[in-house]
Amino acid sequence: MTSKNILCNGQAFEEYIFENEPYYVPTGNEIEIFTAAYKNNLPVNLKGPTGCGKTRFMEYMAYHLNRPLITVACHEDLTATDLIGRFIIKGGDVEWNDGPLTKAVKNGAICYLDEVVEARTDTLVVIHPLTDERRILPIDKQGIVLKAKPEFMLSISYNPGYQSVIKDLKQSTRQRFIAIEFNYPSMNTETQIVAHESGVSQNTAHSLVEIGHRIRNFKQHGLEEGISTRLLIYAGKLINEGIAPNTACRSAMIEPITDDFDLQMSISEIISAVLEWE
Amino acid sequence: MTSKNILCNGQAFEEYIFENEPYYVPTGNEIEIFTAAYKNNLPVNLKGPTGCGKTRFMEYMAYHLNRPLITVACHEDLTATDLIGRFIIKGGDVEWNDGPLTKAVKNGAICYLDEVVEARTDTLVVIHPLTDERRILPIDKQGIVLKAKPEFMLSISYNPGYQSVIKDLKQSTRQRFIAIEFNYPSMNTETQIVAHESGVSQNTAHSLVEIGHRIRNFKQHGLEEGISTRLLIYAGKLINEGIAPNTACRSAMIEPITDDFDLQMSISEIISAVLEWE
Amino acid sequence: MTSKNILCNGQAFEEYIFENEPYYVPTGNEIEIFTAAYKNNLPVNLKGPTGCGKTRFMEYMAYHLNRPLITVACHEDLTATDLIGRFIIKGGDVEWNDGPLTKAVKNGAICYLDEVVEARTDTLVVIHPLTDERRILPIDKQGIVLKAKPEFMLSISYNPGYQSVIKDLKQSTRQRFIAIEFNYPSMNTETQIVAHESGVSQNTAHSLVEIGHRIRNFKQHGLEEGISTRLLIYAGKLINEGIAPNTACRSAMIEPITDDFDLQMSISEIISAVLEWE
Amino acid sequence: MTSKNILCNGQAFEEYIFENEPYYVPTGNEIEIFTAAYKNNLPVNLKGPTGCGKTRFMEYMAYHLNRPLITVACHEDLTATDLIGRFIIKGGDVEWNDGPLTKAVKNGAICYLDEVVEARTDTLVVIHPLTDERRILPIDKQGIVLKAKPEFMLSISYNPGYQSVIKDLKQSTRQRFIAIEFNYPSMNTETQIVAHESGVSQNTAHSLVEIGHRIRNFKQHGLEEGISTRLLIYAGKLINEGIAPNTACRSAMIEPITDDFDLQMSISEIISAVLEWE
Amino acid sequence: MTSKNILCNGQAFEEYIFENEPYYVPTGNEIEIFTAAYKNNLPVNLKGPTGCGKTRFMEYMAYHLNRPLITVACHEDLTATDLIGRFIIKGGDVEWNDGPLTKAVKNGAICYLDEVVEARTDTLVVIHPLTDERRILPIDKQGIVLKAKPEFMLSISYNPGYQSVIKDLKQSTRQRFIAIEFNYPSMNTETQIVAHESGVSQNTAHSLVEIGHRIRNFKQHGLEEGISTRLLIYAGKLINEGIAPNTACRSAMIEPITDDFDLQMSISEIISAVLEWE
Amino acid sequence: MTSKNILCNGQAFEEYIFENEPYYVPTGNEIEIFTAAYKNNLPVNLKGPTGCGKTRFMEYMAYHLNRPLITVACHEDLTATDLIGRFIIKGGDVEWNDGPLTKAVKNGAICYLDEVVEARTDTLVVIHPLTDERRILPIDKQGIVLKAKPEFMLSISYNPGYQSVIKDLKQSTRQRFIAIEFNYPSMNTETQIVAHESGVSQNTAHSLVEIGHRIRNFKQHGLEEGISTRLLIYAGKLINEGIAPNTACRSAMIEPITDDFDLQMSISEIISAVLEWE
Repeated sequence: MTSKNILCNGQAFEEYIFENEPYYVPTGNEIEIFTAAYKNNLPVNLKGPTGCGKTRFMEYMAYHLNRPLITVACHEDLTATDLIGRFIIKGGDVEWNDGPLTKAVKNGAICYLDEVVEARTDTLVVIHPLTDERRILPIDKQGIVLKAKPEFMLSISYNPGYQSVIKDLKQSTRQRFIAIEFNYPSMNTETQIVAHESGVSQNTAHSLVEIGHRIRNFKQHGLEEGISTRLLIYAGKLINEGIAPNTACRSAMIEPITDDFDLQMSISEIISAVLEWE
Repeated sequence: MTSKNILCNGQAFEEYIFENEPYYVPTGNEIEIFTAAYKNNLPVNLKGPTGCGKTRFMEYMAYHLNRPLITVACHEDLTATDLIGRFIIKGGDVEWNDGPLTKAVKNGAICYLDEVVEARTDTLVVIHPLTDERRILPIDKQGIVLKAKPEFMLSISYNPGYQSVIKDLKQSTRQRFIAIEFNYPSMNTETQIVAHESGVSQNTAHSLVEIGHRIRNFKQHGLEEGISTRLLIYAGKLINEGIAPNTACRSAMIEPITDDFDLQMSISEIISAVLEWE
Repeated sequence: MTSKNILCNGQAFEEYIFENEPYYVPTGNEIEIFTAAYKNNLPVNLKGPTGCGKTRFMEYMAYHLNRPLITVACHEDLTATDLIGRFIIKGGDVEWNDGPLTKAVKNGAICYLDEVVEARTDTLVVIHPLTDERRILPIDKQGIVLKAKPEFMLSISYNPGYQSVIKDLKQSTRQRFIAIEFNYPSMNTETQIVAHESGVSQNTAHSLVEIGHRIRNFKQHGLEEGISTRLLIYAGKLINEGIAPNTACRSAMIEPITDDFDLQMSISEIISAVLEWE
Repeated sequence: MTSKNILCNGQAFEEYIFENEPYYVPTGNEIEIFTAAYKNNLPVNLKGPTGCGKTRFMEYMAYHLNRPLITVACHEDLTATDLIGRFIIKGGDVEWNDGPLTKAVKNGAICYLDEVVEARTDTLVVIHPLTDERRILPIDKQGIVLKAKPEFMLSISYNPGYQSVIKDLKQSTRQRFIAIEFNYPSMNTETQIVAHESGVSQNTAHSLVEIGHRIRNFKQHGLEEGISTRLLIYAGKLINEGIAPNTACRSAMIEPITDDFDLQMSISEIISAVLEWE
Repeated sequence: MTSKNILCNGQAFEEYIFENEPYYVPTGNEIEIFTAAYKNNLPVNLKGPTGCGKTRFMEYMAYHLNRPLITVACHEDLTATDLIGRFIIKGGDVEWNDGPLTKAVKNGAICYLDEVVEARTDTLVVIHPLTDERRILPIDKQGIVLKAKPEFMLSISYNPGYQSVIKDLKQSTRQRFIAIEFNYPSMNTETQIVAHESGVSQNTAHSLVEIGHRIRNFKQHGLEEGISTRLLIYAGKLINEGIAPNTACRSAMIEPITDDFDLQMSISEIISAVLEWE
Repeated sequence: MTSKNILCNGQAFEEYIFENEPYYVPTGNEIEIFTAAYKNNLPVNLKGPTGCGKTRFMEYMAYHLNRPLITVACHEDLTATDLIGRFIIKGGDVEWNDGPLTKAVKNGAICYLDEVVEARTDTLVVIHPLTDERRILPIDKQGIVLKAKPEFMLSISYNPGYQSVIKDLKQSTRQRFIAIEFNYPSMNTETQIVAHESGVSQNTAHSLVEIGHRIRNFKQHGLEEGISTRLLIYAGKLINEGIAPNTACRSAMIEPITDDFDLQMSISEIISAVLEWE
């Protein structure tokens, strides 16, 4: 994977051009839907929990659609100006600095606003005219209106499990995007990923995935969020480094996801059961 | 449709002059009422849910009244200054930059403040003297008071379903506008629109509209907001691109409007029933 | 009515000198009380609902007392500086710009602070020394204290129906003003006004006023605020333009005042009943 | 009464030197206590309701102690800087401008902070070292510490009826002041004042005072605050101008103090009863 | 007592070097504990109610340890910058100005942060590295890290009775200080102090102290805080000036501590009883 | 221990290079886990209560991994800019000043963000791209993206007992770290530490530790947080200085951890019991 890191003022982001195919195994027809949306200039909303592969999917699609990918991690201090750009003073001169959204609009990149609901409300208003047939981005500070290149695409992600009364996508925003629901990969797929990325054997990887899947069932029993594939890989890496499997699982699969003593005990039993049995 | 995009400082907006009639099918006597209001200099408030055609109606009226249309999408950081204008520094010189409202007042355009209740309170005070017989706009920063051209018209929109205790139009503002209630188009009209804008057959369009109308009935059963015509068109576009109708409907008509599992299941059954039957 | 629009920096306001008598029919002894207050330098508080004629009364009194009228619409971002004035930069020079209150104090005008309770708290402190025997206005930024001209008068308005726990006039402010309670005009008076200002016949005007009075009785049954005379005139104008009376009343007398379905139905029945009967 | 109005930057205030004795009739031993406090450099807290004569008492004491009086009306935007002073730019030069507290400390004036609890918390910290034996005022912006002149005295007022959980004098501040409780003047005294200041006869004045005293009894029955002597004078002035007593009392003694219909009716009956009887 | 008042920018404070022993009578082993803490570089937290002698104790210890004392009264606008220092513009030049904490660290003074819990949270973080073995103070604006002189000591005070959910010392801060609990002095001690500082006789002083001690028992019955020794002295001073003891006690011992009518009555009875009896 | 104190602008921090092994006795397999994480570039989250040795552990690991340690104490005013760096004006020139995180990324240091949950939300977004395979730090103000040196490691701490609804690590952040749970050292270990660092005998140290362990059991009975080892050492130091053990324990082990009278009494009994018995 060759990456070209670019930074625009006001907000950190990266623009990747992928020369090799990112590793991604589809879990449904998300590739077809995304491709159809891309061809029809429809903006896309990726819905799903933490660490289920949304970001990797974006990289995979960017590679196959042969577009650069510009990712912006949204947070509650992110403003429209951060996305669009601002004048900065550089060595005494005033210089305009495109923000990540402007860069994407100009270059026909795919702009991915991760956890968009975290950003301030004016940012959502800014993207509205990019989501309908107008596909324009007004840049007030420069007094111009940019027409997005045909290749430009806007994508957002959002985690339904997190939305609260205060922070939620308004229907007038939601209804501007088609939405694809994401979930954790299947056990086979996840086993492959864990084995490959952590270096453990298929058997060990399978045990870790087995544990992970059982933990995700606790979501109905008080667990705030399922466990991400990333943490399964962490566990694998620790085991690979010689840490006892039980210890590795505790550090990578219990402590990171909950502080609740009872939940910790229950997960601990699952881990012991699975590890013993295999 | 020829459009001239203009940007004023402080707030993005667009000024359209419509050379061809925008596609709009009236759902009642809204055209007559709006025309009568225009002739009598009465400001108008368009009430209705997301995506029921209020914006398109404004375009249609602007065309028939032969006026440019200036639209401002209001949000909670929008201030009176954004609407009126400000001095900006451009190449070392200080330059005055009309805001969208000022531009409309000067040019005798129709100014449409979309979701006005989202804006900050000082913006509402600013429009008050434009809504009564005085029809003036004081521009404090320049020390002048503008008298609106006779052709100037002020229109706002507002979604009754969204209003909360915190954000509501005060009676002293509401009572300055006549109000027209909007709702979704009739099935026949909507079928025409969906077929025309997505490229699917009349039959498919009819099915999508049938589903849409049934979904809107869920509003009493926990659905926050009905489904917009735009999403029906999205579904059509995905189908047209070869996506299976069930899949297309899931991405365009279920996921975008609700995260509730039970509601999703109910809508899913509606979709299957309608698609099967036709 | 000849008007001289003036704008002071920091806050929009208007200064009218009325050459013709504004149309106002007294509803009680408000003229005598206001006149007596004026002669005794007593500040006056106009209490009453939206659209019951307070502003028109101020214009009427300004005409008869032969004073210019300076009106400031208060809102929650209005500061003491907005009222008093500030230094502005104009073409490179720094220039002092009187605010509306300062202008009134200097010129011996009547200053009318509409919905004063909406303004920020420091504005209320600023007016205190103008309301007792001192009648002074300290202008801190210029380092001077202005003594109000003998003709200067301060008047405020306030809507008792709106006051909440958060926004209320403190007793230490309230007790600095005599207060006059306003209400809607009598049916005869209102009929005259509606007929005259909308152009409809006395009969139609009477029907509209009849409806209006019945609507105002709903205040005890969930209606937030009575209907203003202005909306009755709006209805008349639409009727005059050829809109069917039922339709005109819906747009001007139902939709602008409530979103509640049941209330809308009840008002609708009133309208039909009155229109049929007459 | 000769007054010298002075304005310091950042906050308006006035400094009076009284050449004639202000009209004040003591209601207890407040004069002796205040005098003893003054001689012992004890700061004084005047407790009491709106309009009971605290300000007038301060003027009276300033006259008898032969000190200038500097009054600051506190509000929630008042900062320590406003009290102490700041640098201002005047014609290109930077100039230090004493605030009212600094001026009082330097000149040995009596500084009266009216409704001190309304000010921001840092202002209270600023006055602490002035209230104990140190009697110093550090002026950070100038890098100096002022020792108060022996004649300097600090006095505050506060209305116990207003204090809420949010805004209250902390014990660590309260216990730095001796406190004198104020209440409305006796009927005889108040009758004299009302007659003298409004111009009505002793008889009429007595009736107004009688009404006022009865109204004050409503404090236990829902009235937020008693009626001030000022409003009794207002009523007298309106009567003197020819307004009917009942009408004058309504405008000056009912509407200014409550919006509650039942309370208004009860007070109205009191007024009628007293006016009839006399 | 010779004092050298010093002012650092950003925050007022004073640095005393005591040439004569401040008057302080120990109430327990607080002197030994404080001395041991000083020798071991342990920071000390003085816990206790308003006006129980904490500040005087600090002065006493500073005298005996032969250290200057720098006191900072904390309030909710106090920032880390206020404690550490800032660059100021003075006559065109930029000059660094040590804050009180920096001054203490450099000079090996005792720094006493009074009511530290009132300050903003970043101030607490700033003192952390001064409380453990590192004893350093990083000054970011100057790009240096100061090592405290061996004689430097940090002390804070805090009033347990005031702490609320919002404002409380976090355990991670509390556990960095040893803590000494303070309370009011014994009756004999307090009698001596009151007699000496107010000038009244031993007998009168004893009565005042008797009253004070009884008032403090009301703490369980609704009194927010006990009465400080300072107020007993105030009462003595008023009596000494010729004010009747009952009146003096009302102004110095009832009104300053409560607005509650029932509590005032109860305290009043105590006062009468004690004064009569003696 | 040789330390090199470095200060970066915007936020105080220290960079230590440890020449001698810091004194640390492991309580589990935390050393192995941390080492494995370090080798695999996994970020680590240290979970545990105040004063249980997390900071000392970081110093110990930094020594053994032969890396400098940069510690940042997070607080609620800490912004991303504070971590990354900013331009400062120094003697007229503008100079870039690396923040602590940037310094660590450049130098391959271990960056330890203590109580990270206290910092503002944008800081958490800033560390995200450092926690996955990208290991990059975009510096927007300079327009560059730094790739972390291979030796760079990110570690955070967090106290599960403190987390509230408002301040909590989001799962999308938590799941980026493996986590190690910390607790107080065993009695033997703690006795050694207390004896060594305070200078008291093994016997006394054992008593103090015995008390400490019993106090920690009160956590279930209303004690907010267990007692830190540091406070046990404080008690030892006071005893060593000649303070009576009971008094020393009160100042170092009761007053610092609770203001609750009943809890204080219970702890006091424990202390007496243990001290008597030994």
